[in-house]
Amino acid sequence: MSQGKEFRPAARLARGFRDISAGDARARLETLGCLRAVYERFGFEPLETPAIEYADALGKFLPDQDRPNEGVFSFADDDEQWLALRYDLTAPLARYVAEHYDALPKPFRRYQSGAVWRNEKPGPGRFREFIQFDADTVGSASPAADAELCILAAEALEALGMAKGDYIVKVNSRKVLDGVLEMAGVSPGDTRRHLVILRAIDKFDRLGLDGVTRLLGQGRKDDSGDFTKGAELEPQQIQRILDYVTATQAGFDAWRNVVGQSEVGRSGVAELEAMGALFEAAGFGSDRIQFDPGIVRGLEYYTGPVFEAALTFAVTNDKGESVQFGSVAGGGRYDGLVTRLKGIDVPATGISIGVDRLLAGLASRKTQAGTVFDGPVVVLVLEQERLGDYQSIAQELRAAGIRAELYLGSSGMRAQMKYADKRRAPVAVIQGGDEFAKGEVTLKDLALGTRLSGEIESADEWRKGQPAQVCVPRGGLVAGVKEILARGAK
Amino acid sequence: MSQGKEFRPAARLARGFRDISAGDARARLETLGCLRAVYERFGFEPLETPAIEYADALGKFLPDQDRPNEGVFSFADDDEQWLALRYDLTAPLARYVAEHYDALPKPFRRYQSGAVWRNEKPGPGRFREFIQFDADTVGSASPAADAELCILAAEALEALGMAKGDYIVKVNSRKVLDGVLEMAGVSPGDTRRHLVILRAIDKFDRLGLDGVTRLLGQGRKDDSGDFTKGAELEPQQIQRILDYVTATQAGFDAWRNVVGQSEVGRSGVAELEAMGALFEAAGFGSDRIQFDPGIVRGLEYYTGPVFEAALTFAVTNDKGESVQFGSVAGGGRYDGLVTRLKGIDVPATGISIGVDRLLAGLASRKTQAGTVFDGPVVVLVLEQERLGDYQSIAQELRAAGIRAELYLGSSGMRAQMKYADKRRAPVAVIQGGDEFAKGEVTLKDLALGTRLSGEIESADEWRKGQPAQVCVPRGGLVAGVKEILARGAK
Repeated sequence: MSQGKEFRPAARLARGFRDISAGDARARLETLGCLRAVYERFGFEPLETPAIEYADALGKFLPDQDRPNEGVFSFADDDEQWLALRYDLTAPLARYVAEHYDALPKPFRRYQSGAVWRNEKPGPGRFREFIQFDADTVGSASPAADAELCILAAEALEALGMAKGDYIVKVNSRKVLDGVLEMAGVSPGDTRRHLVILRAIDKFDRLGLDGVTRLLGQGRKDDSGDFTKGAELEPQQIQRILDYVTATQAGFDAWRNVVGQSEVGRSGVAELEAMGALFEAAGFGSDRIQFDPGIVRGLEYYTGPVFEAALTFAVTNDKGESVQFGSVAGGGRYDGLVTRLKGIDVPATGISIGVDRLLAGLASRKTQAGTVFDGPVVVLVLEQERLGDYQSIAQELRAAGIRAELYLGSSGMRAQMKYADKRRAPVAVIQGGDEFAKGEVTLKDLALGTRLSGEIESADEWRKGQPAQVCVPRGGLVAGVKEILARGAK
Repeated sequence: MSQGKEFRPAARLARGFRDISAGDARARLETLGCLRAVYERFGFEPLETPAIEYADALGKFLPDQDRPNEGVFSFADDDEQWLALRYDLTAPLARYVAEHYDALPKPFRRYQSGAVWRNEKPGPGRFREFIQFDADTVGSASPAADAELCILAAEALEALGMAKGDYIVKVNSRKVLDGVLEMAGVSPGDTRRHLVILRAIDKFDRLGLDGVTRLLGQGRKDDSGDFTKGAELEPQQIQRILDYVTATQAGFDAWRNVVGQSEVGRSGVAELEAMGALFEAAGFGSDRIQFDPGIVRGLEYYTGPVFEAALTFAVTNDKGESVQFGSVAGGGRYDGLVTRLKGIDVPATGISIGVDRLLAGLASRKTQAGTVFDGPVVVLVLEQERLGDYQSIAQELRAAGIRAELYLGSSGMRAQMKYADKRRAPVAVIQGGDEFAKGEVTLKDLALGTRLSGEIESADEWRKGQPAQVCVPRGGLVAGVKEILARGAK
């Protein structure tokens, strides 16, 4: 920390990163605590893995590349092995399960929350570090495991204050999609065409029937004139897929129709039906969990049921349009979790909440209530030689569970009051020589003061009345502060 | 996640990192929550900074080096700027304060907890990722700010269950040390000698008077025969320093004597006296906070009061010796916080808790209570076609605030009971066809069962009695489970 003279680097955040200050940090901590309580109640166990893993154990890139940096922050260790920052919480879970497979209870049910890092181009609202909150059940092939995660998502959102109608959990099955494609005569080996079709289905919400029809056919020109090449399917193939995309969940008859004789498709529908029965048994109707043929999720990853939780209330986007807030969590079954590391297929299903996005959703739901006085009580220091007395006041408030601080600067009364404002203190505690002699303290209600100063017209009237400040005996300090805080809490 | 055939990387933790499983993860979360509550009560605000910063803004190494990797994980960004993982929480605070200096309330009081990374050689119990919990007051030169951090440390340890006598907070002043050296006639410009002397004082606890005397003189040969070169002071210089090292806090007279006419030394003693008055006013006697001339802390960093919190109870070390657990937190005043970035001296003081070390200390204080049944209640699945009923049971328990899970595997009753044991479930809920017909459920008290199976001699006797299992009406499920849990909690 020396070298000050010759070179002064600029104090600046790294590109694509951000600081989180008090209000947001508290909201984040509270939300994580609330999620944790719900996940614990469902019997998931916490696990913490390190931020840094061997790049080859994390997967996603070849270990023999010189700089395997695509989308991931990576760097060579002293011994020339490549290290990488985790880019999600699933790859570390795969490493953990593969490493401890024999010792783990099966099914193994764990939750984990933490930062993940992406070495990607940042943009507005797109950061290179963000928080995920995952729950996974490893070693169970039962649709009950998938159903449970959907219920978990619904309960988590409700625990965070979302009401019925504020959110929806949508469910589909990759097997059903495969069955539909099989019946439409799309060759299973034609991966490129599969992806184009899945992408088209994924856009049904946004583009509607006409748009999807074009994307399944020759292609589509968007508003800006850009042309997206289509899947080049025949009309009867397109019809089969459109029949599926427009199927509702009514008794699953329509779903069974479109998958026809496809074995994988029928198995997919049967799993969804089993999940439906469990939703019903748990009291989760279609106002909270719905089957939706438009849900696709990640393109090359999932192998069975897939699900997504979205906040459904309207927010205003950058262009001033009112849009649905949208997805805050997603997941599904991915039976290849440890295949790459262990060479065996272990059934697994999981859900991941995008915590930062969820927080944005929760925040947009809260009404703006003007200035919030959420700071600590500030004890002013009027006579430096009586610092001990002032500190006792702070200490006494803390012992009563009240957030309190002693003013630690060296400025006068006026600056101290400004400081209290900046700290959004609800109360300032003042004890000058007179009050000390009489064994009293003055308590200033800063919330009331702010409100009244808007109402009272003349400064004179204000000074005379001082309605927002009371003088109490020193022994009544805690009771007096509590009374003011209770007033503000209303 | 494909490429499975051609190459299978070993699933292994990166060198120097570790996983934290359920029990430890919960203890960590609880401890962090408890610390947070205390820091909030003292009026500190949470701040979260990113894990990644620009290497030059973090400091500690030159930005124009090709690979500025000493002790820090660093890597080049796309635009060739060097990024680094934070190695503590103070350097990011300095960057934050310098960046937002004008907008911050002054003093600025923040706390932050989070992982930090050191690119160092790992060893037993030495990891390359660990958690720190810091509180700092920036912009206050008052000894009240330093005193408050010492009180905060004491209150935090007590909130975590440490009693008086389990811990001690020790306080010294870098200014006093400088004053003593000045009076001993050690040239202030002789940095090397300063360091040798401070290191010697730091070892007083371990080496005693004789060892320190040698280190202040020609040098000292340790038990292994290694020779440490000394500070090569004259006998009267050595005596002056020994007078200080053996000074007690009695009225600070001894301290004042050794600093004599040194201005910096006298100012240091005056600050400690002011802190002592505040400790007294807050009711913290020398059984909790002590002045100790042996405390040195970090060698080139601090500029005023320094402090350290240690757990004082005995633990057994690797060699089987009984030793004091030792330091879990440390800090002090460092008025050069933003000098390097902003070119101005801003007074600052802070304390950092080594959370992993603290957790080890708390754990060693807890008595081993045999097997802990801290898992969720496990609802067995005896008839797959009644999955919905079993799920309702789990759901009902969760709604009552009881951690519960449905068995999600595909194995039979015996394997399910084994699973419940492995999950350390306190209760297994069983409902076979008979019980279902009668509208009943069986609750198995697994804690009691484990205890009894150790007591009852014949397996036959055990089977007949089944004292650890009760049958209750389906409507009495929650009450029945609660009763068993309450029994276990005793």
